[in-house]
Amino acid sequence: MTTVHELPTPCLLLDPVRLERNIERMKRRAVDLGVALRPHMKTAKSIEVARLAAPDGGITVSTLAEAEYFSAHGFEDILYAVGIAPGKFDRVEMLRSRGADLQVVVESAGAARQVAARGIPAWIEIDADGRRAGLEPEDLEVLRIAELLGGSLRGVMTHHGLSYAARTQVARAEAAAEERDAVVEAARRIRSLGIPCPAVSVGSTPTASAATDLSGVTEMRPGVYMFMDLYQAAIGVCDEADIAISVLASVIGHRADGFLIDAGALALSLDRSTSRLPMDLGYGKVCDLDAVPLHDWVVDSVTQEHGVVRSPEGPPPSLPEGAMVRVLPNHACITAACHAEYQVLHDGVEVTDRWGRVGGW
Amino acid sequence: MTTVHELPTPCLLLDPVRLERNIERMKRRAVDLGVALRPHMKTAKSIEVARLAAPDGGITVSTLAEAEYFSAHGFEDILYAVGIAPGKFDRVEMLRSRGADLQVVVESAGAARQVAARGIPAWIEIDADGRRAGLEPEDLEVLRIAELLGGSLRGVMTHHGLSYAARTQVARAEAAAEERDAVVEAARRIRSLGIPCPAVSVGSTPTASAATDLSGVTEMRPGVYMFMDLYQAAIGVCDEADIAISVLASVIGHRADGFLIDAGALALSLDRSTSRLPMDLGYGKVCDLDAVPLHDWVVDSVTQEHGVVRSPEGPPPSLPEGAMVRVLPNHACITAACHAEYQVLHDGVEVTDRWGRVGGW
Repeated sequence: MTTVHELPTPCLLLDPVRLERNIERMKRRAVDLGVALRPHMKTAKSIEVARLAAPDGGITVSTLAEAEYFSAHGFEDILYAVGIAPGKFDRVEMLRSRGADLQVVVESAGAARQVAARGIPAWIEIDADGRRAGLEPEDLEVLRIAELLGGSLRGVMTHHGLSYAARTQVARAEAAAEERDAVVEAARRIRSLGIPCPAVSVGSTPTASAATDLSGVTEMRPGVYMFMDLYQAAIGVCDEADIAISVLASVIGHRADGFLIDAGALALSLDRSTSRLPMDLGYGKVCDLDAVPLHDWVVDSVTQEHGVVRSPEGPPPSLPEGAMVRVLPNHACITAACHAEYQVLHDGVEVTDRWGRVGGW
Repeated sequence: MTTVHELPTPCLLLDPVRLERNIERMKRRAVDLGVALRPHMKTAKSIEVARLAAPDGGITVSTLAEAEYFSAHGFEDILYAVGIAPGKFDRVEMLRSRGADLQVVVESAGAARQVAARGIPAWIEIDADGRRAGLEPEDLEVLRIAELLGGSLRGVMTHHGLSYAARTQVARAEAAAEERDAVVEAARRIRSLGIPCPAVSVGSTPTASAATDLSGVTEMRPGVYMFMDLYQAAIGVCDEADIAISVLASVIGHRADGFLIDAGALALSLDRSTSRLPMDLGYGKVCDLDAVPLHDWVVDSVTQEHGVVRSPEGPPPSLPEGAMVRVLPNHACITAACHAEYQVLHDGVEVTDRWGRVGGW
């Protein structure tokens, strides 16, 4: 039996009990809301996690490398949810020729013309919050693209990124209603032209966790819910005890105001999501091997391979050299992407498995 | 011939002409200053770059994975410059048993006792700026550790991290003098006990670029100079035309205030070093395929796989869908770590090689 004490630090730990609980909770929500679940695998990037999370087989990905990896492992209904650049058509066609039902996202007539010419099925990205990508539901371009795609149109999709800023369940439920209204309206207008728009898809863990009525929506695409993180806990989407990943680190030195660990910018990431919240958790919250927070200790500053643990309020933190801690992440997607694999850790002690991750593009 | 237009985006480009010019400049500085160069490979993490940069064979690394990789490729004189955790001794001994002269860094009597018992050669880390790790030169612990190490003591080393905050050449020269004084004083005190302290080592690209007198110092360990970055250019350590790496990205969408590229937090990193400077360059400066800046365009915001290019002053930036841009990094070490390899690009057109990088720990 490998124990946590034998692991090299830094490394990425995954608690399978929390993972499965998070996944079951979202599956129940999808059932309750009457929609399918097409989980976004951009957070976990792991086939073992996909097998647990994607009951209907359909998944969402953020890179073609993910599409290739999940297809090679038997997932075929794949939505590549980042706007397609023309230089990527060849790889998309290669994957499709091998049997993957890989679908892309477009938001311009130019791109729609090209995917239609190649027979690649596509979704139209709708902008529900003015934040990132997509067309507004009322934009005439939506109808122009739908006409160009014709039978290749799979549906309309959106992602309400602003929902991450909603600090209450009520505000998130409103964001979920905005997401719904944007895609349902886009689908209605497309269908009014006599063009089929089979799927109507919404995204984001905060909206999926708060939605009360998804009438007209066919599926949702949350991703971070599988792992959760300090940001989701801080805005009330989950409890800290739901966070399924953490970075294992060793104490490597001491300072007057705290101690040094061997997890810095490359092991924790530079994500500072919680800096926008009333309780700034630095580069992560420091816990013992059972993932129980140690006082108010946070990783207060980082360089490439060093983290400095300090206490915002109490006396300077200290642990002996060689002691191990677990650092909960601000943002699971970004911290997980620092690592090539998960160490699957049961009860804070036993390492039962290593699960790979697909990186790159 | 592969051209830049055939590369998948996002990917990491390396300009070999700029790389070699940067490397030659630092070699000349080392000669002029009368010290050896033990380049820090934490930035490049590439054997091809190490062969160009390490004329004397000695290198510095930030992870044991780097030590194993460079040793497997023929480099044997390796300083692992992050304080050693006891859990890593087995890997260090394994590497040493295969012929690597791997050296570690300690800053406590406890660690010194353990490395001495195992016959692992060690350096004492000295704190020159109160910022991260190490002991002050006057600390009695330095002498206690030196006595424990005895013949295993290879030298004293420091890294003046605060030198990154020095905005003028004069301030950096002062930081270089502080670095020098700290380690030279520590070495003097150790030697006064009759204990040999062969090496006296300083680090950091800003200090190496500005030092005027390194009397008593035997070597320097800069790393980022090989690639340089927007931060180094902004504080005056280099010109923007010296920056040897960039992220190639494709335009994938448009917005009223700019356009979207397929390089976001995972391809560019979340490093915001330039946010502390008068000219905030967002998540990187946007250039054409010849690495010439396009107006004042910057990657103004990112999500996992999306970047939004905006102009701080001028009209909203626009380029056609599918157009390619190069994004210069805020911080070369952190952006390079997002990628598994370099595409070696000549004259902004021809891709002549792919060089690997060693990731993980």
